[in-house]
Amino acid sequence: MRVGRGLLAGVVAAHADAIYLVDERLAHLLPASAAKRVLIEANETRKSLEAMPDVILKLRELGANRSTHIVSIGGGVLQDIATFAASVYMRGLKWTYMPTTLLGMADSCIGGKSSINVLGYKNLVGNFYPPVEVVIDIDFIRSLDAEQVIGGLNEAVKICYARGAQSFADYLADGPVWPLPPEIAQRLLTRSLTTKKWFIEIDEFDRKERLLLNYGHTFGHALEAATQFGVSHGVAVGLGMLVAIDFAKRGAHLTPAGTAQADALARHVEAMTDIVVESGVRWPRVDLAAVLQKFDNDKKHNSEFYRVVVPVRDGELELISIPRTDATRAALRTSYEAIFAQLGIDSAAQSSAA
Amino acid sequence: MRVGRGLLAGVVAAHADAIYLVDERLAHLLPASAAKRVLIEANETRKSLEAMPDVILKLRELGANRSTHIVSIGGGVLQDIATFAASVYMRGLKWTYMPTTLLGMADSCIGGKSSINVLGYKNLVGNFYPPVEVVIDIDFIRSLDAEQVIGGLNEAVKICYARGAQSFADYLADGPVWPLPPEIAQRLLTRSLTTKKWFIEIDEFDRKERLLLNYGHTFGHALEAATQFGVSHGVAVGLGMLVAIDFAKRGAHLTPAGTAQADALARHVEAMTDIVVESGVRWPRVDLAAVLQKFDNDKKHNSEFYRVVVPVRDGELELISIPRTDATRAALRTSYEAIFAQLGIDSAAQSSAA
Ligand SMILES: NC(=O)c1ccc[n+]([C@@H]2O[C@H](COP(=O)([O-])OP(=O)(O)OC[C@H]3O[C@@H](n4cnc5c(N)ncnc54)[C@H](O)[C@@H]3O)[C@@H](O)[C@H]2O)c1
Ligand SMILES: NC(=O)c1ccc[n+]([C@@H]2O[C@H](COP(=O)([O-])OP(=O)(O)OC[C@H]3O[C@@H](n4cnc5c(N)ncnc54)[C@H](O)[C@@H]3O)[C@@H](O)[C@H]2O)c1
Ligand SMILES: [Zn+2]
Ligand SMILES: [Zn+2]
Repeated sequence: MRVGRGLLAGVVAAHADAIYLVDERLAHLLPASAAKRVLIEANETRKSLEAMPDVILKLRELGANRSTHIVSIGGGVLQDIATFAASVYMRGLKWTYMPTTLLGMADSCIGGKSSINVLGYKNLVGNFYPPVEVVIDIDFIRSLDAEQVIGGLNEAVKICYARGAQSFADYLADGPVWPLPPEIAQRLLTRSLTTKKWFIEIDEFDRKERLLLNYGHTFGHALEAATQFGVSHGVAVGLGMLVAIDFAKRGAHLTPAGTAQADALARHVEAMTDIVVESGVRWPRVDLAAVLQKFDNDKKHNSEFYRVVVPVRDGELELISIPRTDATRAALRTSYEAIFAQLGIDSAAQSSAA
Repeated sequence: MRVGRGLLAGVVAAHADAIYLVDERLAHLLPASAAKRVLIEANETRKSLEAMPDVILKLRELGANRSTHIVSIGGGVLQDIATFAASVYMRGLKWTYMPTTLLGMADSCIGGKSSINVLGYKNLVGNFYPPVEVVIDIDFIRSLDAEQVIGGLNEAVKICYARGAQSFADYLADGPVWPLPPEIAQRLLTRSLTTKKWFIEIDEFDRKERLLLNYGHTFGHALEAATQFGVSHGVAVGLGMLVAIDFAKRGAHLTPAGTAQADALARHVEAMTDIVVESGVRWPRVDLAAVLQKFDNDKKHNSEFYRVVVPVRDGELELISIPRTDATRAALRTSYEAIFAQLGIDSAAQSSAA
């Protein structure tokens, strides 16, 4: 893995004969010598099993054979499509990934997973097929907006917080801001990727650790899903962490020191969320009953317990099991309501009791 | 792996809650307790990436989740579909395979590969995802016709011949005949599967060995393709071995003992092929120029050499490289013509010079 500026030219020089799977919005940045191209609109419809034959056909028409190298350039959508297509084409081609969104750079480019939609079911199929190299050219950050950058930073701070108090302190000391200067981006990305790698490597022995990276996700996914993705993923993860912190504080899981630690994260995420709102992003109207319904349906729970990652004791994260009772559901509702009220999100709590 | 009679009932009892991906032609054999079923017509159109979303959707509608077990019952088409679908559904479900064609039982059920068509390109994509268990119920053989059984036996004898003279002699001693009694089927299948396993295990160290299992395939594929699969795979593999033997004998690769050994295989395959013809299967008209064209296009060759498996020296198989010259092409044509003439295949050599 490499992180730096101006790396695109070097990748193209090293892979002149590769086939480029590229987010069409970024095609103008590609040197002409990258001649074999498949341009893909980065949306959820293209990231589907139904759309895959078309991608495979284009590879075939460009003459792809067993020794063809694929270079994928784009965000999570391009990553998912490239992972899947490269893994199955003639039973597997080597590929290089250049993430271009902050979410891709800070988080998803490590792990080797794909998630592909099927006939409207989001991420129903997928596989594992890591690229042979990940090259992060931070010049791609320039054209991202506040919502995209802060969404990525939310994943980065989640990773660093999950690693422990020192890692979180180091992350804040790196100075995440908007707009994000290249030097700071380089520091933050290097830190969050190194930390994510630690989780993935330790995970070979202990599956528990990696589950902590779901922090903010169970609460956040419910919000994404209930708003038909009207709240973007990274921003929803930030809100999910806020709800988790509120929930943990009410449940008396935290020592006073732990509360201070969790609050430090909350203040950081709130400040980041404010920047998104100031950039002009508007909250959709949120149906709280629908959010709770989606939370309830999350497949990570089991029949007896809700399973969520929250800060406990001195602020460290833990995957806890909470009985699926009315009392728990009332507490969850209270925490969502508190965060929605604090951020000025219109949550229609009254109008739609479940 | 288990080989025996009446094993279907036991599999269903052990996997009452599984989802059954079943060749629709065999659905009537399934006990009613195997309630969750996806019936699939075993043809090349269904075995495609375009048809995969429908299979995935049916799994979803039957409630498949991460812990669902899949049981696939059918020939190579069902195996390919199940390998692919099980590997990607929620990033991987465990599955059991019950092969029901002799080709599946004797050969393809070991190896864990899938081959999936894409928009008319045969087997353009695929992956590796072996079932957790293979259960061979030889009662399924009862409803197979001579062409299907002998096609499977051709793959079995190919495997045993590739292993060496003793293994080939043992195979013949097992007494392959048509119709195939269950006791003989059990012996032959156990032998060919054990032998194929040997190739696959040794292959982790030495890729060369496994390539010998392509015996008959480069010559045979050309014939399948040039007749739009008017000659079935297993029968074409038999003819492919005959062409390879003829070609090797003309090329003086064999000692006298080796010629005798290769001829023993040729006599066996000829006898088997005669049974197919006697059962009523008619040869399609074959365009020899098209066969040679398809042979020429095989992706296993490289730019300088044709690469084929033939018997050499004392009859053992070897992957040899032959210069891509007009002389070689003339020799290939001669061998195809000789085998076509011997079997009474109308090969239209004149009418369509390439
Ligand atoms: N497989 C995994 O591990 C994994 C992990 C997380 C998310 N995902 C998937 O990733 C997708 C979301 O990913 P994402 O948000 O990174 O990106 P994306 O690919 O969906 O891109 C989001 C938008 O940003 C644009 N864009 C990309 N790079 C840009 C740049 N440098 N400048 C300006 N615009 C740019 C795209 O054209 C698109 O309009 C979802 O489908 C999600 O399921 C996958
Ligand atoms: N993945 C691999 O390793 C691999 C290897 C070899 C072949 N294949 C693929 O397998 C396919 C050919 O496989 P195949 O010939 O085994 O079978 P198939 O699944 O194509 O079946 C052939 C026919 O036999 C019928 N049939 C199956 N079982 C029967 C039974 N017990 N009684 C009566 N009829 C039965 C089917 O309905 C079908 O009409 C091709 O698509 C080929 O590409 C895959
Ligand atoms: Zn995320
Ligand atoms: Zn074969």
